[in-house]
This record gives sequence, structure tokens and C-alpha cells, in this order.
Amino acid sequence: MQLLKDRIIKDGEVIGTEIIKVDSFLNHQIDLALVSEIGKELARRYEGAGINKILTIESSGIAIACAVAMYMNGIPVVFAKKAAPNTMTDGYYSVEVTSFTKRTVSSVMVSKKYLTKSDKLMIVDDFLAHGEAAVGLAKLAEKAGAEVCGIGVAVEKEFQGGGAKLRELGYRVESLAVIASMQDGHITFK
Amino acid sequence: MQLLKDRIIKDGEVIGTEIIKVDSFLNHQIDLALVSEIGKELARRYEGAGINKILTIESSGIAIACAVAMYMNGIPVVFAKKAAPNTMTDGYYSVEVTSFTKRTVSSVMVSKKYLTKSDKLMIVDDFLAHGEAAVGLAKLAEKAGAEVCGIGVAVEKEFQGGGAKLRELGYRVESLAVIASMQDGHITFK
Repeated sequence: MQLLKDRIIKDGEVIGTEIIKVDSFLNHQIDLALVSEIGKELARRYEGAGINKILTIESSGIAIACAVAMYMNGIPVVFAKKAAPNTMTDGYYSVEVTSFTKRTVSSVMVSKKYLTKSDKLMIVDDFLAHGEAAVGLAKLAEKAGAEVCGIGVAVEKEFQGGGAKLRELGYRVESLAVIASMQDGHITFK
Repeated sequence: MQLLKDRIIKDGEVIGTEIIKVDSFLNHQIDLALVSEIGKELARRYEGAGINKILTIESSGIAIACAVAMYMNGIPVVFAKKAAPNTMTDGYYSVEVTSFTKRTVSSVMVSKKYLTKSDKLMIVDDFLAHGEAAVGLAKLAEKAGAEVCGIGVAVEKEFQGGGAKLRELGYRVESLAVIASMQDGHITFK
């Protein structure tokens, strides 16, 4: 998606060879015009796939997930939670997920009420790096007996292997901007 | 907002006298049609107030904040973070916030880049209970020299005093469903 690639080049900030900051338009400050276009394009790619629910993870996946859902006739969005609030009193599915950017391992939970075997899911996130979050969400879906129709992300850092891992597991992955490498502040798209 | 009140009556789950779960449509699973109407109504109430940015806090404020911003010509949304990822390398403002539902005290941060003295803010959240999150966001705005034009929330639990506290501090507060009390599973709106 050229619009996103252009924006990454213009406003993304490369830190070392592994991190690209997109805080000014995607995951701290949100540019809704761009996020809406991202949602439209991810929805277009999965048109006809029979998806009836979007599954994402708090926090930075939520805006994109909502945009995708808007372009899929307003199907529900469910976001997995990283800590159980005291309002989460019913049963839930839980998996362990390692966060690359926060250097933490945390439990990720979804209430059993909102993930069921009748769900045909699209897993949505802002980034796909090592694939920990997406694999965790797919495991939650598996526990619930829900079907994962595909995974859609805005930015894939191909060199960190998450996309390859998910494709090897048999998942369809759509990424709107695939970064092959980053070096000396320079981004090379695939 | 009758649509929201009706939905709270229909799908909200009262736990004791203090907690109302709206997980099925607002803060775990998201009903985008409803969230869009919430955004439209909050934007309408602040029409002409000169707002140029929405400030919210991860995670459950994000969807509503995006909906409000969409109805305010796509102005930027900034969401304060509860933990600093290793991509947050620049300076940030930080305040301590107590979470009523999670029983935790955590630092809430916004990068100095995305909160400045030229910002005329609307603070948006899903719930207003004891007011901790909104007061924290207002303090972040104050640190940045940004102006808080008003606060907009979907659900205010009036009996927990956050709304009164904020109004005493001089803030305009708009709440679309104001709960006066909850008892024996029954909700009384103001």
C-alpha cells in the first residue's frame, strides 16, 4: 500500500536495525485518514473470505481493527486484554505472549463469551515482527474452536520472521507495508 | 443518549453496587455501530468548541476517541500509554493514575511531541467513575500547556464522584449515559 509506505518513509523513525517508530501516525498519535485507508485495504483483501469478527490485542491494534470492521459492514471487534480487570468475572481463554518492544511476557485473555466456534476471524494488528502477538491470538482462537480466516497487519518487519512463521503454520497473512531491512536510518521495502 | 441507555439496560451487567460490565459492546467486544453513534453525539455536543485534538488513554477509550475524531473532521487522536515501550525514547510527560477496575496504580505517559501548547483538547474515555483517568489526562495536558476544552465520556457513574470532581475543577463534562445508582441488578439513570 503505497500511501502507508510513503508515510513510513516520511514520518517513521528508524532506531538501530530492528525498531521503526510510527508514533506520530499509528501507535501513539493516530492519523484517522490513514488508518481508515488501511482498514479499507485490509477489508478489500479479505473480501468474500466469510469473516464475521475481528480479533485484535490492546492497545495499538484497536484503531486499525475498528477501521477494518467498519469496511466489513460493522462486524464486531474483540480485543484481547493483557491484564484481567475485576470486571472479567466469567471464564476466559488465556495464553502467554512476549512483547518485543516492551521486553515483557504477559498473559493475554479473551472472555469465552466473545470467542466461540461460530466465529470466522480476521486477526488484525498494527505490527507483525516476531509474530508473538499474532501467534498468541491464533492460539486463543484455537482454544475457542474459532476459525482464523486470515491475519492482516499494517506493517510487517519481514526480517524478524513472524510472517514466515505464521505462513508456515498455514495462515494467510496480508501486510500492507513489508520492510525487508533497516540500516543506517534507511528502510528497504520488499 | 437513549440508544446507549437502552443498550446498557439490555446488555449491561450490574455487579454489586459499583460495577457495570459493558464488555459485550464497549470495552472488550466493540459494537461499531453504537460506538459510531457515541462519537457522533460527543462531537455534536462540542461543535464550535475549537477542539483540534482528542486525548484518551489506552485501551478502552481508543475506539470511542477514534469515532469522535472521525466526526470532527478526522483530527488526531493521541492515546496516553500505561507503560513506556522501548520505542518511547524521547521525552514524555508522566502522571500517576489509580485504576478502579484493576486496583493498580500506574504511570500514564504521553510523548512531549504529541501534546503541546497549541493543542485544544477534548479528553475522551469510555467510563467516568472516580475520575482518576480523566484527572490524570488533564494533568498531562496542563504539563504540556495544552488547553482542555472539555471531557466527553460514554458512561458516567455519578455516584462515584468523578464527574463532580472534574466540574469543580472547572472542566466541562459531557456524559451520554449518567448512572445515578445501581442496586439489586437494577440501574437508575439520572
